[in-house]
Amino acid sequence: MDDSYYMKQALLEAQKAGERGEVPVGAVVVCKDRIIARAHNLTETLTDVTAHAEMQAITAAASTLGGKYLNECALYVTVEPCVMCAGAIAWAQTGKLVFGAEDEKRGYQRYAPQALHPKTMVVKGVLADECAALMKNFFAAKRK
Amino acid sequence: MDDSYYMKQALLEAQKAGERGEVPVGAVVVCKDRIIARAHNLTETLTDVTAHAEMQAITAAASTLGGKYLNECALYVTVEPCVMCAGAIAWAQTGKLVFGAEDEKRGYQRYAPQALHPKTMVVKGVLADECAALMKNFFAAKRK
Repeated sequence: MDDSYYMKQALLEAQKAGERGEVPVGAVVVCKDRIIARAHNLTETLTDVTAHAEMQAITAAASTLGGKYLNECALYVTVEPCVMCAGAIAWAQTGKLVFGAEDEKRGYQRYAPQALHPKTMVVKGVLADECAALMKNFFAAKRK
Repeated sequence: MDDSYYMKQALLEAQKAGERGEVPVGAVVVCKDRIIARAHNLTETLTDVTAHAEMQAITAAASTLGGKYLNECALYVTVEPCVMCAGAIAWAQTGKLVFGAEDEKRGYQRYAPQALHPKTMVVKGVLADECAALMKNFFAAKRK
């Protein structure tokens, strides 16, 4: 299984979010070639700004593992994490972060480029077009 | 009720955290002179790096209000928020942030000074000595 495979799984989560009117961002956490958490953005459904896909995926993965740290895990998320999520990814000492589309407006790279844990490996741009298209179509439909 | 009064309430929450072996950080959310949420750090108890006092307070306050945004609220927290919490405080469009002790190592001011919402009013240093003392005593006891 390569990064594209797991990003496709994150994309399936993002689609679920979009179908329920949520900004379509999805995430999965992979540990030893196994997906141990899947989540999508639920901020509207839960009336909770903290319910981003990554936050829920981190919480769920830690629960599955029985430990707070995800140093042996990879987090796949369809869109570049925001500052909040980058902070959580850092606290979890996540081993690897893979994201699809960049988020120039709200992404951590703009506001907190040093926010991640120094040991976190970062891979950018995996299936970026598909990830970005989901977002573009969602917001285009909203403006109609 | 002034900022010191509400910070004392946050300090009570921080003490609760310390008593259960959690890093002693506490928070309250105030809306129209009423405390609508109280929370303390529960990262160890919940095995969840996202369970900072501020995160829980924001989630609880939004639940009480029935809306995601805390633009008419003030968040009081005993220690300077980290990057993750600053991001959440921004997403919630929090009207006012009041914190006690600064956190030079992990605080948002170092890593993401622009992370907050531009409309959020920030007040620093309220009961800073008491807030810092709780932290110092906790870590000193841990090292014994």
